[in-house]
Amino acid sequence: MATWSNASSTLMVAAVVLLGLSSASVAHGRRGRRSFVSSYDEPCMEMRLYLHDIIYDYSNSTANSTSAAATKATPLSTAVSNPGYFFGEMVVFNDPMTEGRALPPSPGMEETAVRAQGLYLYDKKEAPNAWFAFSVVFNSTGRRGTLNLMGADLMSEKTRDLSVVGGTGDFFMSRGVATLSTDEASADLSYFRVKVDIKLYECYV
Amino acid sequence: MATWSNASSTLMVAAVVLLGLSSASVAHGRRGRRSFVSSYDEPCMEMRLYLHDIIYDYSNSTANSTSAAATKATPLSTAVSNPGYFFGEMVVFNDPMTEGRALPPSPGMEETAVRAQGLYLYDKKEAPNAWFAFSVVFNSTGRRGTLNLMGADLMSEKTRDLSVVGGTGDFFMSRGVATLSTDEASADLSYFRVKVDIKLYECYV
Amino acid sequence: MATWSNASSTLMVAAVVLLGLSSASVAHGRRGRRSFVSSYDEPCMEMRLYLHDIIYDYSNSTANSTSAAATKATPLSTAVSNPGYFFGEMVVFNDPMTEGRALPPSPGMEETAVRAQGLYLYDKKEAPNAWFAFSVVFNSTGRRGTLNLMGADLMSEKTRDLSVVGGTGDFFMSRGVATLSTDEASADLSYFRVKVDIKLYECYV
Repeated sequence: MATWSNASSTLMVAAVVLLGLSSASVAHGRRGRRSFVSSYDEPCMEMRLYLHDIIYDYSNSTANSTSAAATKATPLSTAVSNPGYFFGEMVVFNDPMTEGRALPPSPGMEETAVRAQGLYLYDKKEAPNAWFAFSVVFNSTGRRGTLNLMGADLMSEKTRDLSVVGGTGDFFMSRGVATLSTDEASADLSYFRVKVDIKLYECYV
Repeated sequence: MATWSNASSTLMVAAVVLLGLSSASVAHGRRGRRSFVSSYDEPCMEMRLYLHDIIYDYSNSTANSTSAAATKATPLSTAVSNPGYFFGEMVVFNDPMTEGRALPPSPGMEETAVRAQGLYLYDKKEAPNAWFAFSVVFNSTGRRGTLNLMGADLMSEKTRDLSVVGGTGDFFMSRGVATLSTDEASADLSYFRVKVDIKLYECYV
Repeated sequence: MATWSNASSTLMVAAVVLLGLSSASVAHGRRGRRSFVSSYDEPCMEMRLYLHDIIYDYSNSTANSTSAAATKATPLSTAVSNPGYFFGEMVVFNDPMTEGRALPPSPGMEETAVRAQGLYLYDKKEAPNAWFAFSVVFNSTGRRGTLNLMGADLMSEKTRDLSVVGGTGDFFMSRGVATLSTDEASADLSYFRVKVDIKLYECYV
């Protein structure tokens, strides 16, 4: 067994180098000499971003809102009548994401370099519980491309894991996990901020 | 060529061990000593689950319903007027999943250990045809985590394959295929049960 | 270093053969002797398809329309009032896809061998900007199966990349990138055609 372990360790080093070199080229418009890495114990890329959601339905701000309920109360939701959300509510969003906690300044908020675009929905009768599918769109000189995410936002849990199911541009073919945790939620329901810790385990580096 | 085959076979064994060992550690909150496996001929994990959907719009049961139409009839759907579904109908669901066929008992149904959360929609004028995007949420002592699925539910086919596009927790970074088949559909349209055969080809084991 | 490069190159060749042979079998109903390939510099499969979308809301054609808005104008969209689309508009579609640019003939259009089924939504107040999640369904003697796509359709860009996050049937376990570009959009908003260049980097060949 020890022999196997040793042999495997040696092979592992070789394989990591191998996977790296096998893709080391300029392709798909990606800049510079990069390599595709699959690494399941340690992320090949990590980042923390804060997502800011200002829903029109509570903020009533045409200028500042970043999301809006796309569906109306359903017969079921009227019957169980929960304030602040309803079963079947689908929200379309185009939310700024920032590296720090601060909400971006109002003029300019709509042009932040990182945005989350897609939908979330509420799927529980008695309590808020959500489901997300969206893209994180990067548009700066430092990084361009998208990450595509999908998963359950189990709001009764302190942290919730979504899947990063793909990526494009600088994030070509990426996969990983995004851990969400609510960082702030205003009492009047008009604003919430979610901390999003993204760890990629398959990516170009 | 025979030499190549032999060499490859030997390498293949080494690589399987290698892929295993390269990830054999306690990481991401996953329990015990586990390994990431990519195996395209044989699934690395299989399970059969039954999904139970009780739609409010036909069952009229506030207590027992697990789904509800989130959108209302559209001008197109009114024009082609199909009973039981309509083009553009989007349904939000939070459905219990069980290992056996039996519907979970009414008290407790909302806390089954496996749930499917997300949306389906109808996208055909003349006949029911659906599209799904959802998470299977596992919440038991035996397994915790999620699988994220997406795909066409071609209802005219006996079996329909969806993609498992990602996973979290015990299903960290999983991918595979889920085969759906309708197991029961009530005449009054209030209930259907779908058999979901999940086969993972990339998973931690 | 030169020694490493040489060794890696040799291993690389072995590994490519290895990955091929390790899956060379008849499985999952896939026809013939096929192999799973991961290739990040060159696609393992490429195809160009044109997606045709005829929205009911502008075409008013019950027979020919292939999509319909599933949600109605929201308070936000009424406030900002954009013609032709609105923030929060979700469209369900079942669009024919063709290898050439020509729209399929009206009788038969609903049975084209390749279809895109799913949803898109508009998520910007001031200008059209979209997000897609859908399946490409292949149903011909030549190829059967699905590809599942998701991503941002940044309409201010000439080309937009979506992720191919999974596949089934002949496209078992596929992943890649789909590049969209608007090929035609009618002035009356009733029809658009999008060129979809699909490149798979993980696929069975």
